[in-house]
Amino acid sequence: MRRGVKMLKGRQDMFYNFEVKTNRQTELIDITRQVQAVIDKAGTKEGVCYVFVPHTTAAITINENADPSVSRDILTTLNQVIPFQGPYQHMEGNSPAHIKASLLGCSLTVLIDAGKLVLGTWQGIFLCEFDGPRDREVYVKVLKC
Amino acid sequence: MRRGVKMLKGRQDMFYNFEVKTNRQTELIDITRQVQAVIDKAGTKEGVCYVFVPHTTAAITINENADPSVSRDILTTLNQVIPFQGPYQHMEGNSPAHIKASLLGCSLTVLIDAGKLVLGTWQGIFLCEFDGPRDREVYVKVLKC
Amino acid sequence: MRRGVKMLKGRQDMFYNFEVKTNRQTELIDITRQVQAVIDKAGTKEGVCYVFVPHTTAAITINENADPSVSRDILTTLNQVIPFQGPYQHMEGNSPAHIKASLLGCSLTVLIDAGKLVLGTWQGIFLCEFDGPRDREVYVKVLKC
Repeated sequence: MRRGVKMLKGRQDMFYNFEVKTNRQTELIDITRQVQAVIDKAGTKEGVCYVFVPHTTAAITINENADPSVSRDILTTLNQVIPFQGPYQHMEGNSPAHIKASLLGCSLTVLIDAGKLVLGTWQGIFLCEFDGPRDREVYVKVLKC
Repeated sequence: MRRGVKMLKGRQDMFYNFEVKTNRQTELIDITRQVQAVIDKAGTKEGVCYVFVPHTTAAITINENADPSVSRDILTTLNQVIPFQGPYQHMEGNSPAHIKASLLGCSLTVLIDAGKLVLGTWQGIFLCEFDGPRDREVYVKVLKC
Repeated sequence: MRRGVKMLKGRQDMFYNFEVKTNRQTELIDITRQVQAVIDKAGTKEGVCYVFVPHTTAAITINENADPSVSRDILTTLNQVIPFQGPYQHMEGNSPAHIKASLLGCSLTVLIDAGKLVLGTWQGIFLCEFDGPRDREVYVKVLKC
């Protein structure tokens, strides 16, 4: 078991979780390695893995993890389209984060083949922080099929 | 079986559906209770549940269901980013609804643990109406795994 | 096996893929027929199918496939909201395509009933090209359940 990956409630047959500490208000953090570590631990060779973020101001997405400027451009543009200031009613002041979370989504399914996540050459899995910095959790369930 | 949940085609081993009546042109309706009722009926303790909206001007999302102003801010902002009036070609006049439907998506996977939907503290599942009021359907398939 | 559908690595029990040739910079291409062909080939009567696009400047969505002006309105509006020109840092110049890809997503789950994709009357599955023309791939895994 790699660092940062632990079992939820200690039950190997249920699902796994790991924590991600974010550092900025909005940030994309590559979690591909952590998700792969869950698959390694589960020992699943063929199947699918469900990745879920149990937060309402964070999301999960797949995009390029080679050039970090792609992540920056995604965040900059989202922050322009959904501005931090506006006529929002939600008293906590983080409505833009909630909106971005729904636009990108909190649930993802990735195929597994030969024990590895099936991702394109440039694809990585990112936790999207929209209201940080915070401690976030990611749930991963692996299904052999 | 709780109110509002019925089997599709009467086959318990296939999938379930329930109806949602919407009241406004754009609206987020919390359907967490109905999805949980499907899991209760299926009797699944550990697994995943697939939630699917068979419409092209409605969507499904997970976001905060504690403060209703979050839903309102999501709708208000989406309606600003994708305005009702514009140079749309689709003759039915509901192109903005189609666009919002693709942005939020019609398919979602949620984990099940100990017979309950695995959701974060603030998370609820919402049907997103973008071209109402209408009668909408939600499909739910439960997989024990 | 219909035209355009082939097995990945020749293993019937793993997953399938097919290629889609796009013709324009931004384009929605209906791939419902190809996904159904995979289900036909797998012979699955009840279950789910996972559709995945292994690209970072393409996406997958479900929307209306009756009137082609819906697809055009989706693209036109996305291209307005996420403009081709902007203060993007990514040197390849295709940041808008990456952003649109994350907004629509690369992963989708569709139910299968009686050997057919469970889709609403107006729903079709579309590959979304945001940085074409290119040759794209779609992965499909079918799970009997």
